Amino acid sequence: MNGLLTDLYQLTMAAGYFRAGKVQERATFELYVRRLPRNRNYVVAAGLQQAVEYLLNLRFTGEEIDYLRGLPQFAGADPGFFDALKRFRFTGDVYAVPEGTPVFAGEPMLMLRAPIMEAQIPETYLLSMIGFQSLIATKAARAVETAAGRAVVEFGTRRAHSPEAGVLAARAAYVGGCAGSSNTLAGFRFGIPVFGTAAHSWVLSFPTEAEAFRQLQGLLGPATVYLIDTYDTLEGARLAAGLGRPMWGVRLDSGNLVELSRSVRRILDEAGLPDAKIMATGDLNEYKILELVAVRAPIDAFGVGTDLATSADAPSLGAVYKLVEVQTGDVKRYTAKFSADKSTVPGAKQVFRYADHDLVACSWECPAWRDDKHPVALLRPVIAGGELVEPLPDTHAARRHCATNLEELPRAIRTLFDAKQPYPVHHSAELKKLIRQARTAAGASAE
Amino acid sequence: MNGLLTDLYQLTMAAGYFRAGKVQERATFELYVRRLPRNRNYVVAAGLQQAVEYLLNLRFTGEEIDYLRGLPQFAGADPGFFDALKRFRFTGDVYAVPEGTPVFAGEPMLMLRAPIMEAQIPETYLLSMIGFQSLIATKAARAVETAAGRAVVEFGTRRAHSPEAGVLAARAAYVGGCAGSSNTLAGFRFGIPVFGTAAHSWVLSFPTEAEAFRQLQGLLGPATVYLIDTYDTLEGARLAAGLGRPMWGVRLDSGNLVELSRSVRRILDEAGLPDAKIMATGDLNEYKILELVAVRAPIDAFGVGTDLATSADAPSLGAVYKLVEVQTGDVKRYTAKFSADKSTVPGAKQVFRYADHDLVACSWECPAWRDDKHPVALLRPVIAGGELVEPLPDTHAARRHCATNLEELPRAIRTLFDAKQPYPVHHSAELKKLIRQARTAAGASAE
Repeated sequence: MNGLLTDLYQLTMAAGYFRAGKVQERATFELYVRRLPRNRNYVVAAGLQQAVEYLLNLRFTGEEIDYLRGLPQFAGADPGFFDALKRFRFTGDVYAVPEGTPVFAGEPMLMLRAPIMEAQIPETYLLSMIGFQSLIATKAARAVETAAGRAVVEFGTRRAHSPEAGVLAARAAYVGGCAGSSNTLAGFRFGIPVFGTAAHSWVLSFPTEAEAFRQLQGLLGPATVYLIDTYDTLEGARLAAGLGRPMWGVRLDSGNLVELSRSVRRILDEAGLPDAKIMATGDLNEYKILELVAVRAPIDAFGVGTDLATSADAPSLGAVYKLVEVQTGDVKRYTAKFSADKSTVPGAKQVFRYADHDLVACSWECPAWRDDKHPVALLRPVIAGGELVEPLPDTHAARRHCATNLEELPRAIRTLFDAKQPYPVHHSAELKKLIRQARTAAGASAE
Repeated sequence: MNGLLTDLYQLTMAAGYFRAGKVQERATFELYVRRLPRNRNYVVAAGLQQAVEYLLNLRFTGEEIDYLRGLPQFAGADPGFFDALKRFRFTGDVYAVPEGTPVFAGEPMLMLRAPIMEAQIPETYLLSMIGFQSLIATKAARAVETAAGRAVVEFGTRRAHSPEAGVLAARAAYVGGCAGSSNTLAGFRFGIPVFGTAAHSWVLSFPTEAEAFRQLQGLLGPATVYLIDTYDTLEGARLAAGLGRPMWGVRLDSGNLVELSRSVRRILDEAGLPDAKIMATGDLNEYKILELVAVRAPIDAFGVGTDLATSADAPSLGAVYKLVEVQTGDVKRYTAKFSADKSTVPGAKQVFRYADHDLVACSWECPAWRDDKHPVALLRPVIAGGELVEPLPDTHAARRHCATNLEELPRAIRTLFDAKQPYPVHHSAELKKLIRQARTAAGASAE
């Protein structure tokens, strides 16, 4: 399952490692965000559940192996390599930051150690799955923080980068703090709350707006949300108000949301419906929510679609997966790249979270406690020897973990814009020493 | 299969249509791009193959139906609705623009006519699948046009919005003109060419760069591409040149690509390797390719990743799916929305492509021929009565179709930036009449 869902070069390198007699070498890779995207001061880690499912089920079918055999890139591959793919199982170890944890640039979100072939092949899938879900969880967290207690619902599947991406975006948005999603499969698969009532096509399919509204109320009762902008928003509001209870409220999807929400609020209040709510949708994002909240537009809930499901202002996370150690027998070599604009940091690491800063240290370090409060080690064992260590926290637990952790971040870091100072992340003295050593060794390797 | 992969409101509306006795009504929806994204003057239609597979296989399992039954939104649904879902098959008709066809704002890419429940439910999936693939095919076409004959290869799966989006991005990029992709599953599934040799981790996994290069040449022979920037790019180039033939060439992934490509070209030429090629990668896009091509940097192939697989400068396409007709018995009603910022155009349409403009007409019109050249009707029958009309052109045919069609567009429309004038798209006199009539009727519906 999914064996070929990777970049071809992962598989040619695997063939090369096999040919070079490196099958016994154990490689350690780390996955992290090189630089935070513009306007982001943290990233909410997400997607681990799916990444782990992938690793535990990674296989190659006979048909897939035959396909590879026929490619010119495998003309020089050892026949034993294809047998190795047939028997392929992930047998390595994975440490990862729990879903919902905010992390910063340069902090490993996942560390994977395995025979080098097994460690190389998953790179592409892990980057895509964890990178994407973290991107969306982060975007959601920003909108939820900005909405200041008003509900934010994810509505973006139609603009997600494929329907399956829509399901994963719904999941990640929920981890990041959304109240739920319109994606029904995400509800079925992950048990997250689903929302939705009717679109413009519902209104248009009836001869009159009044008939469309009456039918909707008959179907949904107290869950009824009238979409009131098909013809004229204020007329739509009066029509909805005239139908009275039961209803949840109305939805605005176009026009000037500040003015319309105020006028609609007045119409509902004057009709004796102060508990009827107003939801706003239509090309929203955290920046527009900020404007609406700032002027106290009487909006009770926001539906956020395209911009959330695509993280439109930062549609990718610069996540990378880098080789940091190679071990042959008892000999361990720390690896790093020192090219001008893209250097890496050698050695397996741990991230220690103190109250006011993070410390990136070598994985074997036990950093000092301070003020009687010991730091939290963020990277936890997830897979050991190819086996799941224990069930991962479910999506609901990840969402709670996210909310708690974000609250503990300084407010200056939770701004929608670039913080004046990034969150303090330090390297331990031991790690600094390792970097100096690796730099010297790299000079020798290039010769 | 996939029944729940939709927005919940499609299903609540379906329940509502059932309850309102509208199961016999036939609805016509059209999928089109409302406004072209910034810097786009056309969109390459793509994703139809997967959209059709979805429609032909759309089902609801018993478990999925039970899930819906338990949601509060279905408390008022008619029990017969759940039986209807159990028997659900798409029995409607679909007309669509062939994959690889450039289209413009407001031109239907797909028209779907079916009993209203069957027509409503697929909205979300169709928008996501066709919107995403069209977005990527368009982005690819821009890079390929700019590369002016140099190969462009899609390398973006690791930054795609989920691994499955990476597979679809690879397919769409190929339709748009890319030479192939690094995504191995896309090669296996769609038969598109796959490319890839080795990453930095390959170089780092060996004690020296020289050893890493020798091993790669032994494995790949004439397909060898040396990644030369792990330590020092020019040293890497000299090392590669020293190994001589066989090789395809070298890859640059960081630094100043103009200066480095010139220096590396000189090193290869002086080593008697004028046929050794240079590939450039690393955060490229069509704008950077334009700069590199403009100064004649000696680069033979571009690998484009993140920006292509996410369409980074325009990460969503404003595709919409709008109800244009409802038919009950023999009575047809044309529907349209006339709200301030989001109006729609009533009636099923056809798009006629003339040599120098497009004409959007009512579906039953036979527009005049001109200059003895009859226009091409872009919307072709794809599904009739729930059955595939004929096998769709495969991905290779779609790619050829795209190349031919783009060549016929004026150069001013193929710019990387906003054209001075959009491509001329006119409405027929009959369609204009229908719009006027629907506007009058809408005034009545709002009352």
